[in-house]
Amino acid sequence: MSNFKYRRLDKNDVAVLLVDHQTGLTNLVHDFSPDDFKNNVLALADAAKYFKLPTILTTSFEDGPNGPLVPELKEIFPDAAYIARPGNINAWDNEDFVKAVKATGKQQLLIAGIVTEVCVAFPALSALEEGYEVFVVADASGTFNQTTRDAAWERMSAAGAQMMTWFGVACELHRDWRNDIEGLGALFSNHLPSYRCLIQSYMARGK
Amino acid sequence: MSNFKYRRLDKNDVAVLLVDHQTGLTNLVHDFSPDDFKNNVLALADAAKYFKLPTILTTSFEDGPNGPLVPELKEIFPDAAYIARPGNINAWDNEDFVKAVKATGKQQLLIAGIVTEVCVAFPALSALEEGYEVFVVADASGTFNQTTRDAAWERMSAAGAQMMTWFGVACELHRDWRNDIEGLGALFSNHLPSYRCLIQSYMARGK
Amino acid sequence: MSNFKYRRLDKNDVAVLLVDHQTGLTNLVHDFSPDDFKNNVLALADAAKYFKLPTILTTSFEDGPNGPLVPELKEIFPDAAYIARPGNINAWDNEDFVKAVKATGKQQLLIAGIVTEVCVAFPALSALEEGYEVFVVADASGTFNQTTRDAAWERMSAAGAQMMTWFGVACELHRDWRNDIEGLGALFSNHLPSYRCLIQSYMARGK
Amino acid sequence: MSNFKYRRLDKNDVAVLLVDHQTGLTNLVHDFSPDDFKNNVLALADAAKYFKLPTILTTSFEDGPNGPLVPELKEIFPDAAYIARPGNINAWDNEDFVKAVKATGKQQLLIAGIVTEVCVAFPALSALEEGYEVFVVADASGTFNQTTRDAAWERMSAAGAQMMTWFGVACELHRDWRNDIEGLGALFSNHLPSYRCLIQSYMARGK
Amino acid sequence: MSNFKYRRLDKNDVAVLLVDHQTGLTNLVHDFSPDDFKNNVLALADAAKYFKLPTILTTSFEDGPNGPLVPELKEIFPDAAYIARPGNINAWDNEDFVKAVKATGKQQLLIAGIVTEVCVAFPALSALEEGYEVFVVADASGTFNQTTRDAAWERMSAAGAQMMTWFGVACELHRDWRNDIEGLGALFSNHLPSYRCLIQSYMARGK
Amino acid sequence: MSNFKYRRLDKNDVAVLLVDHQTGLTNLVHDFSPDDFKNNVLALADAAKYFKLPTILTTSFEDGPNGPLVPELKEIFPDAAYIARPGNINAWDNEDFVKAVKATGKQQLLIAGIVTEVCVAFPALSALEEGYEVFVVADASGTFNQTTRDAAWERMSAAGAQMMTWFGVACELHRDWRNDIEGLGALFSNHLPSYRCLIQSYMARGK
Amino acid sequence: MSNFKYRRLDKNDVAVLLVDHQTGLTNLVHDFSPDDFKNNVLALADAAKYFKLPTILTTSFEDGPNGPLVPELKEIFPDAAYIARPGNINAWDNEDFVKAVKATGKQQLLIAGIVTEVCVAFPALSALEEGYEVFVVADASGTFNQTTRDAAWERMSAAGAQMMTWFGVACELHRDWRNDIEGLGALFSNHLPSYRCLIQSYMARGK
Amino acid sequence: MSNFKYRRLDKNDVAVLLVDHQTGLTNLVHDFSPDDFKNNVLALADAAKYFKLPTILTTSFEDGPNGPLVPELKEIFPDAAYIARPGNINAWDNEDFVKAVKATGKQQLLIAGIVTEVCVAFPALSALEEGYEVFVVADASGTFNQTTRDAAWERMSAAGAQMMTWFGVACELHRDWRNDIEGLGALFSNHLPSYRCLIQSYMARGK
Repeated sequence: MSNFKYRRLDKNDVAVLLVDHQTGLTNLVHDFSPDDFKNNVLALADAAKYFKLPTILTTSFEDGPNGPLVPELKEIFPDAAYIARPGNINAWDNEDFVKAVKATGKQQLLIAGIVTEVCVAFPALSALEEGYEVFVVADASGTFNQTTRDAAWERMSAAGAQMMTWFGVACELHRDWRNDIEGLGALFSNHLPSYRCLIQSYMARGK
Repeated sequence: MSNFKYRRLDKNDVAVLLVDHQTGLTNLVHDFSPDDFKNNVLALADAAKYFKLPTILTTSFEDGPNGPLVPELKEIFPDAAYIARPGNINAWDNEDFVKAVKATGKQQLLIAGIVTEVCVAFPALSALEEGYEVFVVADASGTFNQTTRDAAWERMSAAGAQMMTWFGVACELHRDWRNDIEGLGALFSNHLPSYRCLIQSYMARGK
Repeated sequence: MSNFKYRRLDKNDVAVLLVDHQTGLTNLVHDFSPDDFKNNVLALADAAKYFKLPTILTTSFEDGPNGPLVPELKEIFPDAAYIARPGNINAWDNEDFVKAVKATGKQQLLIAGIVTEVCVAFPALSALEEGYEVFVVADASGTFNQTTRDAAWERMSAAGAQMMTWFGVACELHRDWRNDIEGLGALFSNHLPSYRCLIQSYMARGK
Repeated sequence: MSNFKYRRLDKNDVAVLLVDHQTGLTNLVHDFSPDDFKNNVLALADAAKYFKLPTILTTSFEDGPNGPLVPELKEIFPDAAYIARPGNINAWDNEDFVKAVKATGKQQLLIAGIVTEVCVAFPALSALEEGYEVFVVADASGTFNQTTRDAAWERMSAAGAQMMTWFGVACELHRDWRNDIEGLGALFSNHLPSYRCLIQSYMARGK
Repeated sequence: MSNFKYRRLDKNDVAVLLVDHQTGLTNLVHDFSPDDFKNNVLALADAAKYFKLPTILTTSFEDGPNGPLVPELKEIFPDAAYIARPGNINAWDNEDFVKAVKATGKQQLLIAGIVTEVCVAFPALSALEEGYEVFVVADASGTFNQTTRDAAWERMSAAGAQMMTWFGVACELHRDWRNDIEGLGALFSNHLPSYRCLIQSYMARGK
Repeated sequence: MSNFKYRRLDKNDVAVLLVDHQTGLTNLVHDFSPDDFKNNVLALADAAKYFKLPTILTTSFEDGPNGPLVPELKEIFPDAAYIARPGNINAWDNEDFVKAVKATGKQQLLIAGIVTEVCVAFPALSALEEGYEVFVVADASGTFNQTTRDAAWERMSAAGAQMMTWFGVACELHRDWRNDIEGLGALFSNHLPSYRCLIQSYMARGK
Repeated sequence: MSNFKYRRLDKNDVAVLLVDHQTGLTNLVHDFSPDDFKNNVLALADAAKYFKLPTILTTSFEDGPNGPLVPELKEIFPDAAYIARPGNINAWDNEDFVKAVKATGKQQLLIAGIVTEVCVAFPALSALEEGYEVFVVADASGTFNQTTRDAAWERMSAAGAQMMTWFGVACELHRDWRNDIEGLGALFSNHLPSYRCLIQSYMARGK
Repeated sequence: MSNFKYRRLDKNDVAVLLVDHQTGLTNLVHDFSPDDFKNNVLALADAAKYFKLPTILTTSFEDGPNGPLVPELKEIFPDAAYIARPGNINAWDNEDFVKAVKATGKQQLLIAGIVTEVCVAFPALSALEEGYEVFVVADASGTFNQTTRDAAWERMSAAGAQMMTWFGVACELHRDWRNDIEGLGALFSNHLPSYRCLIQSYMARGK
């Protein structure tokens, strides 16, 4: 018999780490179309807000070519912990960042960022080493091309990170539609155009 | 010497035809990602509104599986001519539709719709036959797969339709940024995430 | 002003030529998935039957490696003209075939077959030369790979053939849903799984 | 020496779980062509029926936008256990569903559904944790895009699920053609158009 | 009525121009897999030999990095006209080459070479200007990538060149299987592995 | 007989127009990998310099998000005509730009820029209308995605523009290696890594 | 420290299992181009012969639609063990086959076949369970499509099979070019057209 | 709790092995565009130089078709250990090579080469067996096609090699921008055209 333990996202035990979603760096992302990537990042952010997950924002050199944090994220998380790293490439090398993570008291970390093989993979590996359960939100993380992505996924997955995408994250956190049908429905309608169309067809028919 | 005449979009001579952008039909579109397609259709709509182009909406069997007109389009064009066709597959076979087109008094037609090889191609070919200048907004038109798209483009292009995409349409209509920098910039910022990032990086730097 | 004439499919003036849809040759087709290709060919056949279009079947060496005509086509068209060519590669080089075409009295020819650049392109070019209006049903025609397909399309299109796909053919022939909503709906439901789902969702809702 | 144990499908120890193959949700699937996906799902269903595997159907909100269970599945499994979940996203969170699984008395579970990273992955992980042998029927499971699929496969595979496709499932269950050549041949002929052509060529030759 | 004239390959009026199929240049070809490209070039060569078409070989700087003519071509055409151009990039700028073409007395030219947009396109355009009928054997012509290929095809096709592939060329030249079933069958069996399999299955069955 | 006239690039009659190759806009290009695109643009620039072609640089809002002209181009063309357009989207709408073009006295225009469907297509169509021979350098022109590119190519090609790529441009201008083997060889070695390898292998062997 | 043991192919301890490379089944392979696949299979066969590896051929129903063993394999291995299985789908279920494997006395098994997820995966998993070292020759194994291939690779790799391709197999077996430069060079020249070109360029230069 | 240990690149404990980056072999690489691959290899080399990592160069038969070591690498590493292997395919089978590795005294090995499944995979597996930490620089390693790459990655990853790409390597080595902003920035600017554009836009704005 397998000893597999399903480490399932528990909304009471999850923190979200959004690493270097900055306007300059976003323009380096070529493994998603810009529309898809924007939608995925904001969907994850909206999900984090919806589930009231403690969220930590961090950036690298906002004053330089990397550009400021994507403004939409600032708006969604006006009160989030916000660590502007003075130089550490791996966010986990920054004491304030780790303190912020520990301050959440959570053991499950959802991580997304730009670029996948660095800003996501490095803190993911560090957190795994410290015993956290790490869930990579793969479609809210972007990089230069498919080859780079593939290698990054392989490295993180081999280390024990769970590869997820924003929709699965939201579903695993919510568990049961009855907890709030409208809220979850709105989240999906806003970020899944094809699901929105299903809803609209359905609603029209109901009139 | 070539006798080529550049039939250039002139915002005073353009009407927009949005054909069968319905919620059910949208779910048949597989030659774009849903995020990309939604963005392209709304970008065209926002451009049409921005340039105050007369716009005609038409649908096929909104009460049936095809579903209602995409609600966002209704909101953007609350006062547009709106022809719910009782059965004509080619919108141009519908007298009211043709009347509405003629009532605009325009000679240049921007056409987009679902699906490309039918709802776009048929009225495009009919309009070409009647002497209109036809511009297909190819990225706001969707269909079942790439093969179907390729054949549809080939047929329309062979007939003299000009193949364009929403960004080119907006640029050709605007002609000169000095006509309104902020307005055009807002349109692009709302529908080109990569351009939005450039603007945000630029603005941040200006602070 | 353009002199474009919209040569539109007219169900009273169309004949269908199905060229070499044989079981052996079908296994050479690599520019479609087998499921997609089977569906496209049968969809065209069902459309031809639905619109009662005179249909001509022809094959090349059924006794050899090319294999027999796809049995489903035999069943759909039990009484169709059927020319087993003794060796002509271009079906139009076969007198009986041309006679059968002329016997239909139609001026518009829908052509599909295997392989695209030979069994479709050759008779298409011959028919164009004789003044027929030729419509290639591109997704019911298959070949070895995408490169071969691209060249074949280019050659036929440059010669004046119109590139279509089965769904567009059916829509252009039907013209108006009111001619028979159920019949056309059934055709689409049987050959467009995504449309079938729309219908089923709609019907369920109506209960 | 490796300690690998080949957990091989045994038709006496297998149950099939079909999760949320609903008409609305099917329209969200973009990682397969609609023809391919329809064929794969029905092939799995026909295989399950052919091998008389206990099969459990479950759906989520059939009355809403997700739509009813695909009617073809209802027809194939008129007497199957059928759990309409009142809200649980993970079918395994539904007591009736787990009871139905346990009632089969089987230890090997074939799971397919829509969407892969949620409706398939969640119960797969839950079942693995409870000691079941889990086999994902990957080509009868669909989702939004290739990225989402890749992450879902990675997560399930890392947990110990075996990734299979319907054809492999049927072959591993059957073990020996001599158990029933015609039955298995019919299954393949109905769902593998390329194999059907081989058979038809063969049969023709035999005449 | 269209004035289209089907300029059909006539084996009595065709010459073949193989331009710069050299071993060094072959390694620059990235728009085909090496196996596919090798097969296509040799298939064209074997077809030219089979139909006894006058064939002209030309190379550019065989002593330099471009490398020698592919040895297999030398073997197939031991007596062909062979023009080692001292520097002309467009073979048609070389008097000896044009003389050799004229010496064939043919009006239809089959052209293939490396790289497509230069070694094929330049002489193709020159020959078109001089009134020859030009047929590009597109799959026996290679270049750096798909973008470069697409542009080259577009330019040649717009100029009136007919885009073909080796299999279509062979079929159009042969016209009727009865002219020599075994010869054509052997050509196909040697260069179409999938057709070879059909033949082998057929032959086995016949035993 | 065809009336085709081969409008062949003549280095004495060519001017080069580089339109909006700015650092911000370059980050919008997603139809090439960044390495490929950088190389293509600089290859065209180096070719223009090598052939001493009059070159005109133009930009749109260098002070804004579009960013400055790519610095490498400034260095290659320190004395080129340079028109910073105050707002015209179509460079041809700018009098100074047209004057600069006319001042070259050339009839053949090589055009490249960002983005293809606007900054390249608009002046290309304008120049065609005025009787210039227009050659689009397609691989030194970039845009948002493949769909946008395809539509832009189709529109320009239908208008009579010739689609080329930088390597073909260099070859057609040079005509004969004997004009300068080393110079052309250096150009290719610097911008075609695969050709560079051929040369290096050859040189090593010669030692 | 890792406990990784490099299970390296040792030509004295390897047997080759070629499973169901039959002419009918070959026509089902769609995850390779026919040219590529034919080359890969014959390259593996030639390598097996070159290294004098004991090779076992097995087939399934050669008299039926699956067709006979590919004749080229028969010619390469006239004296190989040859098991025509009467019905076992997993070759390892056939006693004669297992006996033949055991009779070789080898512990390392190179396995290739059609289709990957069945004819390769099943015996691979069985052999792993019995303690053999299993090396899948992935590019000499084909299946219906990329999805099916991906799942099959995942399953075998998770079980401990090593994924290889024919070129790596040949290199790992040979170990040192000095064992026989000409023999290995001939193998590569015959099955790697790009390497053949390198050799031909080199040889020409040496003259 | 997981026992995962993050084996992180430490610039004091890393050696770089560049295996068979020769001019002939480079022309066999088809899983990257030539521009991308050249850039990746030189980026890795520049990073190795920047971090002063001991680097070992090795080649196989430079006098033959494989060609000389890429000259750029010779220039970057004039004093590097350089082992011209007399015949060992696996560099680790060469005593001098292993001695050179051991002489560095490092435990972490960055390996890249041509072709991936042989020249990279073989020494990677050997080094893993001897207890080294192995990091494959996947985008500076090339091979014949994507299938071959996929199998090679799978094999190395299963053995415990970490899959990385050059940018991640540089970032993990550098750890903190404050160690040298300009140096790292120059490295990125030289090898990431998209990042270079960000910097140039930023610098222009700063003027």
